[in-house]
Amino acid sequence: MRLDFWYEFASTYSYPAAMRIEGLAQARGISLRWRPFLLGPIFVEQGWRNSPFNIFPQKGAYMWRDMARITAALGLEFRKPDPFPQNSLLAARTVLAIPEALRPAFSRAVYVAAFGQGLPIAERDILAQLLEKLGLHASTILEKALSEPVKARLKAENEEAKRLGIFGAPTFLTEDGEMFWGNDRLEAAINWERGAI
Amino acid sequence: MRLDFWYEFASTYSYPAAMRIEGLAQARGISLRWRPFLLGPIFVEQGWRNSPFNIFPQKGAYMWRDMARITAALGLEFRKPDPFPQNSLLAARTVLAIPEALRPAFSRAVYVAAFGQGLPIAERDILAQLLEKLGLHASTILEKALSEPVKARLKAENEEAKRLGIFGAPTFLTEDGEMFWGNDRLEAAINWERGAI
Repeated sequence: MRLDFWYEFASTYSYPAAMRIEGLAQARGISLRWRPFLLGPIFVEQGWRNSPFNIFPQKGAYMWRDMARITAALGLEFRKPDPFPQNSLLAARTVLAIPEALRPAFSRAVYVAAFGQGLPIAERDILAQLLEKLGLHASTILEKALSEPVKARLKAENEEAKRLGIFGAPTFLTEDGEMFWGNDRLEAAINWERGAI
Repeated sequence: MRLDFWYEFASTYSYPAAMRIEGLAQARGISLRWRPFLLGPIFVEQGWRNSPFNIFPQKGAYMWRDMARITAALGLEFRKPDPFPQNSLLAARTVLAIPEALRPAFSRAVYVAAFGQGLPIAERDILAQLLEKLGLHASTILEKALSEPVKARLKAENEEAKRLGIFGAPTFLTEDGEMFWGNDRLEAAINWERGAI
């Protein structure tokens, strides 16, 4: 079985999902596809030019508290980045520029930097450090991340997310087209069985 | 310990929460306060004059599928009411017009009617049938539901919900002011321990 994991580096709830998903999927023999994308263009179509957590301050205040509780329960570090949301464009492109086998580890490293340590993941230097720690040649990868094929690839992924009706992150999509949205639906996505209801 | 359960009869996810909460609370020795309120005025302040599930169709389509899965897993009947959302004003007032001990049972009956059977709970006759089934004198209760003191009481509850920063339903509020939003946070609310994080 296969599960598509659609995630956005500016999305708070994608952080705990990214930290949990690989172990859960492996235990059930599910093969994962890590698919970074950008929520910005999708939010713009909903009339939002900022994170809904900034547009609706009470929802935002609640989310930060909820994230603090969730990460504490998981034993994950948690720090609100400033500014929020961070620009996630370069990080998403970078994922698509590295070998597929390293994408999960790099993606988790970006989340830990962004929401565990509150580091500015929009900055090239921060991403370079994360790449080097994984044994990758940062400047080569970052150059590739800014190449036309990689830019086009991310655009195509964003178009695909839109086409699939994805409206938030994290989103989990099963092989038979069942959609689950939110870190709190990860277990349901993992346990989904074709034709269950 | 005490938990306030803020719910709205037009809110889909309040249905499974209402069906589950009493057993969970009782098992932990938590005393519940059932507090019906209206989300409409709060949504209007966010610029929404309709359910966000209608305003954002992709989110709406997802929610109906998610509700089908959740209710199937709980063994609850599920039927989308038409129109959605239903006007929940009279139902909320009616809760405040019946003896406190019967509010949970009546509230669950309203949810089963609304989302289990798709019945028009905005209609006086439907509410009257539910009241009679609980052994209450429907016309007396419904008259009281339309009295000034009950109207004022519901308005005061709505003001209190706003003051507390409630932005959606169901919302669970602990005695020490910890907020949990959504059916999927019910267990976290029940298990909350003061000063836990």
